[in-house]
Amino acid sequence: MTQQVLENLQLATMSTNGMPYGMVTDGAIVIDSATIAWCGRKAQLPEEYSNWSRRDLAGRLVTPGLIDCHTHIVYGGNRAREFELRLGGASYEEITAQGGGIHATLNETRKLSVPQLVEQSLSRIDALIAEGICVIEIKSGYGLDSQTELNMLRAARQIGMERPVTVKTSFLGAHLAPTAYCDHPERYLDEVCIPALEEAADEGLVDAVDGFCENIAFSATQLERLFRRAESLGLPVKVHAEQLSNCGGARLAAKYNALSADHLEYANEDDIAALKMSDTVAVLLPGAFFSLRQSQKPPVQMLRDQGVTIAVATDCNPGSSPLNSILLAMNFSCILFELTPEEALAGTTVSAAKALGLSNMGKIKPGMTANLAVWDVASPGEIVYPMGFNPLTERIYKGQVSTKLAH
Amino acid sequence: MTQQVLENLQLATMSTNGMPYGMVTDGAIVIDSATIAWCGRKAQLPEEYSNWSRRDLAGRLVTPGLIDCHTHIVYGGNRAREFELRLGGASYEEITAQGGGIHATLNETRKLSVPQLVEQSLSRIDALIAEGICVIEIKSGYGLDSQTELNMLRAARQIGMERPVTVKTSFLGAHLAPTAYCDHPERYLDEVCIPALEEAADEGLVDAVDGFCENIAFSATQLERLFRRAESLGLPVKVHAEQLSNCGGARLAAKYNALSADHLEYANEDDIAALKMSDTVAVLLPGAFFSLRQSQKPPVQMLRDQGVTIAVATDCNPGSSPLNSILLAMNFSCILFELTPEEALAGTTVSAAKALGLSNMGKIKPGMTANLAVWDVASPGEIVYPMGFNPLTERIYKGQVSTKLAH
Repeated sequence: MTQQVLENLQLATMSTNGMPYGMVTDGAIVIDSATIAWCGRKAQLPEEYSNWSRRDLAGRLVTPGLIDCHTHIVYGGNRAREFELRLGGASYEEITAQGGGIHATLNETRKLSVPQLVEQSLSRIDALIAEGICVIEIKSGYGLDSQTELNMLRAARQIGMERPVTVKTSFLGAHLAPTAYCDHPERYLDEVCIPALEEAADEGLVDAVDGFCENIAFSATQLERLFRRAESLGLPVKVHAEQLSNCGGARLAAKYNALSADHLEYANEDDIAALKMSDTVAVLLPGAFFSLRQSQKPPVQMLRDQGVTIAVATDCNPGSSPLNSILLAMNFSCILFELTPEEALAGTTVSAAKALGLSNMGKIKPGMTANLAVWDVASPGEIVYPMGFNPLTERIYKGQVSTKLAH
Repeated sequence: MTQQVLENLQLATMSTNGMPYGMVTDGAIVIDSATIAWCGRKAQLPEEYSNWSRRDLAGRLVTPGLIDCHTHIVYGGNRAREFELRLGGASYEEITAQGGGIHATLNETRKLSVPQLVEQSLSRIDALIAEGICVIEIKSGYGLDSQTELNMLRAARQIGMERPVTVKTSFLGAHLAPTAYCDHPERYLDEVCIPALEEAADEGLVDAVDGFCENIAFSATQLERLFRRAESLGLPVKVHAEQLSNCGGARLAAKYNALSADHLEYANEDDIAALKMSDTVAVLLPGAFFSLRQSQKPPVQMLRDQGVTIAVATDCNPGSSPLNSILLAMNFSCILFELTPEEALAGTTVSAAKALGLSNMGKIKPGMTANLAVWDVASPGEIVYPMGFNPLTERIYKGQVSTKLAH
């Protein structure tokens, strides 16, 4: 399909047109190579496309291809044993003594070569693609040594070549300080993390720089060292902010006009006011909230009131959020955080694109990349409301049908 | 495959052998037609099978085929609009005024013919089969008139013919009293529900009789009318018990030695003591708990202490539990109710079989039906721990490989 008119469809354009979801009924989309050339009501299809080939989508709903803007999907091993121990009543200390926790993932990840990292991640990537994902953000952060951090990013780039999906990488060397540096986080930043960032950036492996701002990780002041270097390298930043306590991560994000501040359970009024003055997107991660059985919810109403853009992502990772479904992330954001289905879908399309600095994706609009998801539903709410049911019928990536599911 | 040895596998037999999950490593299974002829350590494979054809399962984990012992999966329409209204801030009254609630499902279901009911349900059934389900319970209860109750059960039977899955039906005419009888539930039972049950039983459509014991539905006393008739028809009973309040459903279940008492959030010590004296299985339904955002959890520790068998199911329905994944039901039961992964897997295999009165399924053991699920994991915990990720590689139903997934 290089030039084609898709017709007999409904459009959730997620572009402002005065309707919820930017809906257009009786719609059509014109795809020219990898780009959306036109979209709107079919009755208004411009004359110039009238002799282009046409495909009938049987009244189905078309949304922008989905975007997962926060994942740690490249890793080695899994933490099922720890999950069992925890539910069997083991304490945190017992789990750590048995080699559990993030150090288990560090150990497993460090063992793997780039092809092995790719291989262990592809089934997870494929599960997301089968749900209509066209863009996925992938973080490093399970190496905390130069070699593994770079290998994780190389694996992420490789995934973008092996699968029809756009990969945006984030360097998360500042995930936590490794054991050898646990009392000297600044030394870790100076001696390991920042040099690794420079090397990775030099190899073209870094689209953004992320840091975990938390008592158990780095302070905002410490992260500034890293962010100043990111700035000088011309790289945008992101922050894991206020997940477990209020530590200044959101204000740090605002100060550096970060692409996103993620988690935000403990963000307060001042934090949100700071975000409001920036272009920073608030990325909500209900998978971690659910899996960690947290009770403190992110301040959704405050974010709404202040007009901060809200995105939603899986946070797919082997420890705190073994959530491998963007559809469930949307559902969870509604059930757990009381987002509306429209906010949830915006959170994985137009707002997720903003959280990754992508101006040409996340909406159905002329000039945007032709990334589309086609659903066997009558309304967008039907995508978000079921749990563990995938109504996708096809995914169009850069103008090509690349995933087709039987229904 | 009529006679075959499966080898190079691990077995979670779910049969008592002193190991968690009834594990057997370096295992083999001998399948003779639709039955498990032998299973155990491969080194002990009896001589008589040594020249049977063999298949190598590459070290994968084999569990019993899964069983979903509580669903309302046959219905018309969906309740996505209501989900949106609720999250948009609409009150219960506003939703009802806009045609929401269970009455919406009654209206949509009553409109459909048997083939239409089957057609609208198959994609949901297929999603469960793709997760290794071999047996599914399906309830009526969205008709509350003789015609629709029978049609739902006919559709359930038809599904069992169109798909390689065993369907067990439950007559749930006592789901609630329809509008015309809302002040006269006994009259509804006498004039509509019991005659419909008799007709359905006469047509061979009923494997069990279910009733919703709740303030908003029927009292235990009212349900006794129905259960006495069930008893005289030789049909076992089940009860929706103590979901929203304590109403005597669990004690009613125990009194009639019901197959199961389901939900149980508000069950107390006396209720559990009563269940202990019966063969009744406690069926936990975390999808409804999650989706309704309940806070009162079922008394899991009390059930354990009293040795009441615990099963886990999806409760798949369009209103309170639009959960279409048995894998998620297991995960939710761990995260929300603190079941161990072993209890969760027992809850969808051996214990779910008991909740349906099936003595030949739910375990891997000689003489049992050869219903098996093969997983690309190293340990059973890896089936339960991820959310929205399906590691099934194949499903064997009555000795035949009938679902094969690419991995």
